[in-house]
Amino acid sequence: MTYQLHYWPTIQGRGEFVRLALEEAGAAYADVARGDGEDGGEQALMEDMAGHDRPPFAPPYLVDGDLVIGQTANILLHLGLRHGLAPRGEGGRLWVNQLQLTIADLVAEAHDVHHPVGLGLYYEDQKAEAARRAEEFRTQRMRKFLGWFETVLERAPPKAEGGGGWLTGQALTYADLSLFQAVEGLRYAFPNAMKRLEPKLPRVIAVRDAVAERPNVAAYLASERRIPFSTEGIFRRYPELDP
Amino acid sequence: MTYQLHYWPTIQGRGEFVRLALEEAGAAYADVARGDGEDGGEQALMEDMAGHDRPPFAPPYLVDGDLVIGQTANILLHLGLRHGLAPRGEGGRLWVNQLQLTIADLVAEAHDVHHPVGLGLYYEDQKAEAARRAEEFRTQRMRKFLGWFETVLERAPPKAEGGGGWLTGQALTYADLSLFQAVEGLRYAFPNAMKRLEPKLPRVIAVRDAVAERPNVAAYLASERRIPFSTEGIFRRYPELDP
Repeated sequence: MTYQLHYWPTIQGRGEFVRLALEEAGAAYADVARGDGEDGGEQALMEDMAGHDRPPFAPPYLVDGDLVIGQTANILLHLGLRHGLAPRGEGGRLWVNQLQLTIADLVAEAHDVHHPVGLGLYYEDQKAEAARRAEEFRTQRMRKFLGWFETVLERAPPKAEGGGGWLTGQALTYADLSLFQAVEGLRYAFPNAMKRLEPKLPRVIAVRDAVAERPNVAAYLASERRIPFSTEGIFRRYPELDP
Repeated sequence: MTYQLHYWPTIQGRGEFVRLALEEAGAAYADVARGDGEDGGEQALMEDMAGHDRPPFAPPYLVDGDLVIGQTANILLHLGLRHGLAPRGEGGRLWVNQLQLTIADLVAEAHDVHHPVGLGLYYEDQKAEAARRAEEFRTQRMRKFLGWFETVLERAPPKAEGGGGWLTGQALTYADLSLFQAVEGLRYAFPNAMKRLEPKLPRVIAVRDAVAERPNVAAYLASERRIPFSTEGIFRRYPELDP
């Protein structure tokens, strides 16, 4: 069965966390709004979203047969179970969901850096406020979030022979894929801050590198399906915010 | 078995969403940091949190036997299943999690109103920026979030004889408890904006009222266990932000 992913067609955004899980799983999916037909485009996306009995609040959402699933972490909770991208046991599943929700918090703060006073305003209308917020984000929040993931990796059970160093220890989960994406996004948006931080994050960077080498992920990243980062997305490179 | 809830001892905050679920379920729990012993207080909270093999990133977290569960929506996912506060079926569980994550987004934005440029700064150091952000929140974001919940309630399956009008239709879930808390918080922080909005939200207000009348919830709200709202919490009443 083919999943239908509904997300803004021109950015990575939050949809990218879902795309990475679908790609790693080798799952068949249509990235609906990126299609050429009458289902494609932002207008069709908004109309489709509003029409469901259980309407999502915002993209991304995934249609899986009768299920219409919104909220990135919720979609991944579903896909993780379906495709072996999360532990089967209750404690493991909750832990991976917890890791994912913490990545979601980091992503939301990365977005707020360039939109501190108005989600509906342009960045150009809040540059001074963004500069204030960016300083705290670079010097405190990024360090706190990424340092926490480093600690999680440090305390994870020892890796199996030839195995991983993944967030849960033994096996890749969707949270590892999302950590990869967070690192990539932060490297794009805050290259200087990341250069200073990365020496303190060997385990986080090892996860990033291991994800990039997964055959399905590597093929995806090299394909046209991977939309480039840009100043339209969640992670934005504004040099004045990363001195 | 007694749950251990770990959260800041002097505010409702995000912990309140967990407290409401525990109270509605009639579950035995210790609100650890509010205790008098050596487990009480913020210092002990921080030390306990940092000591776990799977350390939570931030309070609240719940200890349930061997499980240490962080992230509010994740804790509720667990409690919902344990205490019949969520549907048993997969689709229903995902939908309630989606509702909860959308409430979490609303709560995060309510917090950002008074801390738009620095989580670590005082409100007094960002009053001008807060005024800008508050205007958009009052006139657009609150309306969009609460209007979405109104639509969800409008489209929910018809209520059973004598039953509810709950977010999923037939039965109370933890998302209804959280919607109650969101309405209470917004009424505290933005009384004027809410007075203007509420006439358009009859179903949302009906959920708020129905939750307040649940015997366990009513007893809790009347008890000393319910910490009052204050300008230390997530929802803050600053009259200049709600003209």
